[in-house]
Amino acid sequence: MASPRFTAPDGMPKKNEVDDFYELVAEADLQPLWVQKGIMPNEPPLAAVPFAWKWKTLRELAERSGELIPIDRGGDRRVLSLSNPGLAGQPYATQTLWGAVQYLGPGEVAPAHRHTPAALRFVLEGSGVWTLVNGDPVPMAPGDLVLTPSWSWHEHHNPGNTPMFWFDALDLPLARSLDAVFFENGPDQMANRAVDPISGSELKYGTSPGLVPFDEMDQGAHSPLFAYRWKDTDRTLSRLVDISGNGTASLKFVDPTRGIDVMPTMRCSMHRVSAGAKTQKYRRNGSSVWVTFRGSAVATIAEERFHLDEGDMFAVPSWCSLSIEATSEADFFCTSDAPVFEALGLARVEFLN
Amino acid sequence: MASPRFTAPDGMPKKNEVDDFYELVAEADLQPLWVQKGIMPNEPPLAAVPFAWKWKTLRELAERSGELIPIDRGGDRRVLSLSNPGLAGQPYATQTLWGAVQYLGPGEVAPAHRHTPAALRFVLEGSGVWTLVNGDPVPMAPGDLVLTPSWSWHEHHNPGNTPMFWFDALDLPLARSLDAVFFENGPDQMANRAVDPISGSELKYGTSPGLVPFDEMDQGAHSPLFAYRWKDTDRTLSRLVDISGNGTASLKFVDPTRGIDVMPTMRCSMHRVSAGAKTQKYRRNGSSVWVTFRGSAVATIAEERFHLDEGDMFAVPSWCSLSIEATSEADFFCTSDAPVFEALGLARVEFLN
Amino acid sequence: MASPRFTAPDGMPKKNEVDDFYELVAEADLQPLWVQKGIMPNEPPLAAVPFAWKWKTLRELAERSGELIPIDRGGDRRVLSLSNPGLAGQPYATQTLWGAVQYLGPGEVAPAHRHTPAALRFVLEGSGVWTLVNGDPVPMAPGDLVLTPSWSWHEHHNPGNTPMFWFDALDLPLARSLDAVFFENGPDQMANRAVDPISGSELKYGTSPGLVPFDEMDQGAHSPLFAYRWKDTDRTLSRLVDISGNGTASLKFVDPTRGIDVMPTMRCSMHRVSAGAKTQKYRRNGSSVWVTFRGSAVATIAEERFHLDEGDMFAVPSWCSLSIEATSEADFFCTSDAPVFEALGLARVEFLN
Amino acid sequence: MASPRFTAPDGMPKKNEVDDFYELVAEADLQPLWVQKGIMPNEPPLAAVPFAWKWKTLRELAERSGELIPIDRGGDRRVLSLSNPGLAGQPYATQTLWGAVQYLGPGEVAPAHRHTPAALRFVLEGSGVWTLVNGDPVPMAPGDLVLTPSWSWHEHHNPGNTPMFWFDALDLPLARSLDAVFFENGPDQMANRAVDPISGSELKYGTSPGLVPFDEMDQGAHSPLFAYRWKDTDRTLSRLVDISGNGTASLKFVDPTRGIDVMPTMRCSMHRVSAGAKTQKYRRNGSSVWVTFRGSAVATIAEERFHLDEGDMFAVPSWCSLSIEATSEADFFCTSDAPVFEALGLARVEFLN
Repeated sequence: MASPRFTAPDGMPKKNEVDDFYELVAEADLQPLWVQKGIMPNEPPLAAVPFAWKWKTLRELAERSGELIPIDRGGDRRVLSLSNPGLAGQPYATQTLWGAVQYLGPGEVAPAHRHTPAALRFVLEGSGVWTLVNGDPVPMAPGDLVLTPSWSWHEHHNPGNTPMFWFDALDLPLARSLDAVFFENGPDQMANRAVDPISGSELKYGTSPGLVPFDEMDQGAHSPLFAYRWKDTDRTLSRLVDISGNGTASLKFVDPTRGIDVMPTMRCSMHRVSAGAKTQKYRRNGSSVWVTFRGSAVATIAEERFHLDEGDMFAVPSWCSLSIEATSEADFFCTSDAPVFEALGLARVEFLN
Repeated sequence: MASPRFTAPDGMPKKNEVDDFYELVAEADLQPLWVQKGIMPNEPPLAAVPFAWKWKTLRELAERSGELIPIDRGGDRRVLSLSNPGLAGQPYATQTLWGAVQYLGPGEVAPAHRHTPAALRFVLEGSGVWTLVNGDPVPMAPGDLVLTPSWSWHEHHNPGNTPMFWFDALDLPLARSLDAVFFENGPDQMANRAVDPISGSELKYGTSPGLVPFDEMDQGAHSPLFAYRWKDTDRTLSRLVDISGNGTASLKFVDPTRGIDVMPTMRCSMHRVSAGAKTQKYRRNGSSVWVTFRGSAVATIAEERFHLDEGDMFAVPSWCSLSIEATSEADFFCTSDAPVFEALGLARVEFLN
Repeated sequence: MASPRFTAPDGMPKKNEVDDFYELVAEADLQPLWVQKGIMPNEPPLAAVPFAWKWKTLRELAERSGELIPIDRGGDRRVLSLSNPGLAGQPYATQTLWGAVQYLGPGEVAPAHRHTPAALRFVLEGSGVWTLVNGDPVPMAPGDLVLTPSWSWHEHHNPGNTPMFWFDALDLPLARSLDAVFFENGPDQMANRAVDPISGSELKYGTSPGLVPFDEMDQGAHSPLFAYRWKDTDRTLSRLVDISGNGTASLKFVDPTRGIDVMPTMRCSMHRVSAGAKTQKYRRNGSSVWVTFRGSAVATIAEERFHLDEGDMFAVPSWCSLSIEATSEADFFCTSDAPVFEALGLARVEFLN
Repeated sequence: MASPRFTAPDGMPKKNEVDDFYELVAEADLQPLWVQKGIMPNEPPLAAVPFAWKWKTLRELAERSGELIPIDRGGDRRVLSLSNPGLAGQPYATQTLWGAVQYLGPGEVAPAHRHTPAALRFVLEGSGVWTLVNGDPVPMAPGDLVLTPSWSWHEHHNPGNTPMFWFDALDLPLARSLDAVFFENGPDQMANRAVDPISGSELKYGTSPGLVPFDEMDQGAHSPLFAYRWKDTDRTLSRLVDISGNGTASLKFVDPTRGIDVMPTMRCSMHRVSAGAKTQKYRRNGSSVWVTFRGSAVATIAEERFHLDEGDMFAVPSWCSLSIEATSEADFFCTSDAPVFEALGLARVEFLN
């Protein structure tokens, strides 16, 4: 397929020879820079837009999908992806991040696969579910962050009587724009095993801060710890709120053996805002997706106000300012592409008042 | 804009209630994963295709653009970008890399601007041109690699009587997919100054390998050395061919003060293949764009053969194998997104026989 | 002072002119290499020797020092340093490490000072004591590791009715051989404040593995966490013993925000050996000092056997092999100069059977 | 051997029971901290002193040693080590650095050995000599810096008619204080081969700044480049003097593939001071040894003035201030332990006026 043909833009001589030139250019699989208005915008253009999805709707539709859509090798996962209205129908929450609600019904399993896009789960509702990450059974409960890093096998099990709902995030848009997606299905046969209340990764790497195995360190690109429990997150936020003295606190989830981001493409963090408190307004390039885990608040994104209740999700596009004011004490899970921007020397942050 | 509406895929019950469900999903700005066939391909899908552009055509059209297209604030640069036929009319050589030919006529100047996408020039023809990089005048001559790293000011001057042609590469597709593009025009007034045959960056950082200023190190994300001269590249390749003993040699352009890639998003390298010699076949994820600086050869990209003569350019998409066999001693400049893949823990390489 | 004068070694002509030459050499503050036999030994010479100190004696003498020796600005600390018999009367446990028992009687305080040699405490007996590290009050209890990194203020308080005994380790011999010792006394006036059961450093950095403050990271050369509690150490060792399956486990104390050694000159680790189990024999260059925190064992150091009971301390010099066989379940605290050897590219380890 | 016995210091009760206590302490191989006055000085105590050695004397004695002392397996090297008068007869220039003059007569060879202490040569006089570093023959000429990193084989050959004199520096005092010395003799049989004017390490890593082999990088602890040539050093200094505008310039010798110090324990640098110019006064902890390669100057070390002529060497102990004023344009080679202090988090620098 040849490139599109251009006509001379305004202010340039509309002569036949220019038209001929453009035709030759197109035939040669070339494009003139000077007709590509907007290819170098002064600032990141608002493609993805600030947007919020209400939990009430998300939950209803996820539940409904459980009634209607079978889960098996043909579909594998019952997932509704957040589709940012600015992204022309692409199933992405932002330019770089996939966000979604996943539903796993009572008694259901989702068979094993792996892919180079990194994934994480942040659990919203349910109990008794476990996921098998590279052979390590990891129980899941509300408020837990569970990682399935790039190219790790994962399958999900719900042996209980109630459904589980979780937030899924992947770096899929980034991985696709890099043409870096590999995918592989595992065996149809599911693992069948007793599950401890704590995963092997937690036993080895998650007992106490600053205590690590002496010399058997797992040194992949990602955290060797696959689960970060709500109980710990909650307690850490409480302490950090006490320390900050301004009613807000933020923590970062990191590899406990190196202190680096849990995965090289996705920063994970948790943010507490006390009733009446407000976070400092800032903007950065790169985008993020947020989940309201508890409480209610108003998020102001690029001067647009979004009312948030428990479970509501929202997208903050590149270079859009953000501040959050809580109406009742609120906790937010956030994942962003910040490590990508930092690794590539592109990070910019601006604090605003 | 709401998301596109889906009809139930084959093999799923085509009931009204499913259709209703899909309608609700679309209205809620959501998309079901299970209808997104192909979103996780087993391997990077061939979007960008292996492709070569002939110098004869590139040169003619660039020269013709010099006759037809004025260069000024409306257009700024006379650039023909390589438009990979697989990329649906986008002006990109590969998924992540912009490649182009730039033409600067006798007596012309291109006024100052800067942008977060990183750029480099590899000079093909001409003399007497200089570019001003962050205030440092850098002469340009055939075979030279000249950097204009992310967010550095640059303007071009051709005070002589002959045109200059050079290869331009930018990480623009990557920067755009990250929504990381910032752009700023400089003053219309051009610099007017005497130019030394060597830039300030070369005087300070480019005299001898392993000798660096004791304590005034520039520690940005990119190399403080802006120009790598053909004379040096040529001599280094000669020595490395002698050492390798197999008729081929490859060098990497690096920051001389740290040894890291010249810019965090683009690896630059130069490759010599003696007449009759052949490089080892390999493939990696991520893509590259190549320029035949001297000689002639056949490049086999994903089993497709491309005959290359001096000046010809070619694109190697993600996960496509490559080997090069020279018919006369040939030198290739290459730029790739490899540092991005390495920084993000995504790099894969496979050597083939 | 001029250099010592040498006479010609055996096998060299003992002529007057040679003697004259040596005289001139000495007068010029020079020394001939060829007479310096042993300056480059084939292996690290045994200067420090394998040695163990019995807790029974250490405790008695420390207690006795409490009766006899006042603690004040003239002496500051009631410390008995381990003096390796191989080190010609120097007060060092090994070539690079100072080890000691410190005693702080009921109601006593040790006033503030700071020094560039890094120090750590591993508590053996007592309760109710707290130390103030850079203004942060840190309670001390048996089994706790407490850091006072290089150049941090520290003072000790024993407001209770019982004495405390702890093991002190410093990199003082190293710091002295580098001529890097700075020292400063603080005010005579002691801090007077209520002490929480948990220090500020623990509140901020020690709540849960992999959860760190989002953006207020302390990035000095050492861990921002000053205390590692026995309860956590004990529980981690238990889990690691379960995982190893061979009755032994080793953990490393690290900076929870970066995973690096707690201090750049001293590695800290804890080792559990179940009754009847035996650690793998190995040797490394560089030295270590060990404290038997619980249980009893036999340590074989360079083929010499040492019977160890609770509280016993021992020194392992450079390139001496070590293995430990427990007679009852035993826990060992260890500090070594391994990070120094690694940072300087000098580390060697040899596993033996 | 038991520890020395102390008597109670002044101001403490000289009772029998105290004496008894001290006796018991000594018998237990312990030492009381409180009697160790001076073990923690406020600043690094002046042990090594500022000192200069005159080239006239060094050269005469080195030449004389060539007449008197045979070179063979019994002695191996004809080396006169700088023996700092403050170091009680130890053959060290400073606390951490060995400095020496080495003499290799016409037709002589020094057989192969290797040791963990790192060594470097800075050539002062002679021609035609080459050294074999790990099998790579490296020619030596005045002004060249040649490395023999830790544990690399090296042997020296003087096939010519004139002697060679060079400055040797080793981290031997440091390596010894760490008990890290290993040593091994090579075969008596010397290499016998033609020597190119350039070493293999230079061919591969030393052709041009920022151009490195694409993928066969040597990644040891030290620079893969073994020789830094005077011609390059001289030219770089000239350029840096032009840039600085104050008549002085300093360059650091680094690994051209990573920009780190040439060896992890010794920083190497070269300093030019134009006639009448003066370097900024500063002091740092850690020590250095300097060689006046060209010109004459006055160095003020800790307020003591030393007149320096070509070839003169001087030692700057820890925390002694230094400034140099040239009487004729002067070049100085310097080696220091700065990378050790930086790696261990101990570095302090103070600029003085």
